[in-house]
Amino acid sequence: MAAPDGEALLQALARLDTLTKPVGSLGTLEGVAAWVASCQGVCPPRPFTRPRVVVFAGDHGIAKHGVSAYPSEVTAQMVANFLTGGAAVNVLATVAGATVRVADIAVDGDTPDVVSAFKVRRSSGSIDREDALTREEAVQAITAGMRIADEEVDGGADLLIAGDMGIGNTTPAAVLIASLTGSEPVSVVGRGTGIDDAAWMRKTAAIRDALRRARKVISDPVALLATAGGADIAAMVGFLAQAAFRGVPVILDGVVVGAAAVVAEELAPGAREWWKAGHRSAEPSHALALGHLNLQPLLEFDMRLGEGTGAVAALPLVMMATRVLAEMATFDSAGISGKE
Amino acid sequence: MAAPDGEALLQALARLDTLTKPVGSLGTLEGVAAWVASCQGVCPPRPFTRPRVVVFAGDHGIAKHGVSAYPSEVTAQMVANFLTGGAAVNVLATVAGATVRVADIAVDGDTPDVVSAFKVRRSSGSIDREDALTREEAVQAITAGMRIADEEVDGGADLLIAGDMGIGNTTPAAVLIASLTGSEPVSVVGRGTGIDDAAWMRKTAAIRDALRRARKVISDPVALLATAGGADIAAMVGFLAQAAFRGVPVILDGVVVGAAAVVAEELAPGAREWWKAGHRSAEPSHALALGHLNLQPLLEFDMRLGEGTGAVAALPLVMMATRVLAEMATFDSAGISGKE
Repeated sequence: MAAPDGEALLQALARLDTLTKPVGSLGTLEGVAAWVASCQGVCPPRPFTRPRVVVFAGDHGIAKHGVSAYPSEVTAQMVANFLTGGAAVNVLATVAGATVRVADIAVDGDTPDVVSAFKVRRSSGSIDREDALTREEAVQAITAGMRIADEEVDGGADLLIAGDMGIGNTTPAAVLIASLTGSEPVSVVGRGTGIDDAAWMRKTAAIRDALRRARKVISDPVALLATAGGADIAAMVGFLAQAAFRGVPVILDGVVVGAAAVVAEELAPGAREWWKAGHRSAEPSHALALGHLNLQPLLEFDMRLGEGTGAVAALPLVMMATRVLAEMATFDSAGISGKE
Repeated sequence: MAAPDGEALLQALARLDTLTKPVGSLGTLEGVAAWVASCQGVCPPRPFTRPRVVVFAGDHGIAKHGVSAYPSEVTAQMVANFLTGGAAVNVLATVAGATVRVADIAVDGDTPDVVSAFKVRRSSGSIDREDALTREEAVQAITAGMRIADEEVDGGADLLIAGDMGIGNTTPAAVLIASLTGSEPVSVVGRGTGIDDAAWMRKTAAIRDALRRARKVISDPVALLATAGGADIAAMVGFLAQAAFRGVPVILDGVVVGAAAVVAEELAPGAREWWKAGHRSAEPSHALALGHLNLQPLLEFDMRLGEGTGAVAALPLVMMATRVLAEMATFDSAGISGKE
């Protein structure tokens, strides 16, 4: 995977020091601004005009085994909620100036044609006891995510965000992260949508069993997704890798997108250079994923909703950083005295 | 000072649990949303339509004594930069949907009539050796800030942000915070705009000397501002207290606004309930001020620019939180299944 433009990065860092502010005084925003310039390969960078969120929806067989607080039917119901604009990600995206697309990759039910063009199957297998997908389905899902990224980039998207919707999806996410970071089940299991202690024990056991299966295939990212992932997560892997390949910056969301990102970095090393972490989720395995990818989160808000919400919450900060570098006056242009 | 509406707060907390998301899953945003509802006294809250930034500009005599990296003339030059839209706060405010007003309270030079209507004097005294202001000037400056808040609220502002511009202003800010939190000079002195070690030593000595003078009057907030503050900071004190009195929520910026907030809370106890901390600055005394006010910052971006930038950076998050509570669908309205 080609890296973002080092020349534009250096130009950005030099330009930041000419703007009418003390050197370094915008802190984290300065690093974000320079990253945007390097991704765009130009300094000053272009303000984003079409930030785009794609919510990947899919069910998970493991949800039938008591690891989630909500029934699987909620996944399809939430797809309808996204389409009518009532979900959290819709509201946050409106404020941030982004638009939202929904892609049904593996919802266990029928969804409108507008969202089901890339559907791979209904639900994914229960990963504690069976494969999530066949290898062919895993490839199909990865390819679906790549094609969706291509469609969005070809349609003018200049910043991409992946979101997740799928009851039960923090279980495969935790397994994928644990398998690729060498972590134990108890260090990756979280409360997800808000499970009680009994469900927490079932989830821990499910992660333990799935992890035992996953560890045999950790050197093969496609096999790993087929064994212990899911079609929606595999599609996100393709989406994140293809965004990087197309040179479009991505803001990462929470633990499920984080799991996809860890796998995508295995599949396409260097892709992570095109990603910023929007936030650090309350899910414990997310911190492991971010550490593994060497990414610092912009927000630490104890969010754990998914849908891309943590990334969209950080989007205005990325837009601000970009415009600071593009639009602020310089000491010279504003006729302001420098240091004594 | 009257508190925000407890009934609207309870309604907001109850409503948040009916929205189409797991309970508590928006983390920090949920607390912000409930706070906005309580400030507005209504649930769901009204989305903000006129967030307004007022940058209070003033010079400080102490800047003549080697405590800043920049010459005092930069204050007036930056006022001109704000008016032409080239400063960081202008760019951030444009992205966030806020507008910026500049008020020359004590700039050591002439500024356009449009910003100098509330000017108290040219610069303030060098607080290591003389009073910043007379008591009459301190009252005049506080009153100026109150009148500016009134003008803005009467003009429709529904969220207020104070920003600072003044070479040398982190020195009085550190003294005010140290005096009211009982801290030692070395724990409050920071690098400001980016001073070298020699200037750091001069600044520490200046804070020590000013603090010795300030400690005699810590029980009298007006005398404290006259002794060791400055006209611009006194105006911010009046502004922050009056915003609370008028029931308009405020997002606090960094260390200079934080110092004004600590004094305003002394003058008008309970005012802090109307304020959210936008960020935690890299200046060490800011954390002391936030702890003293019992406020948790939204962002930790190592920003240290002032102008209101750290508050404006957090503004989209406050707007998002507000609209989540106002606009998201409920489980009932969207026909989504609840917990199993």
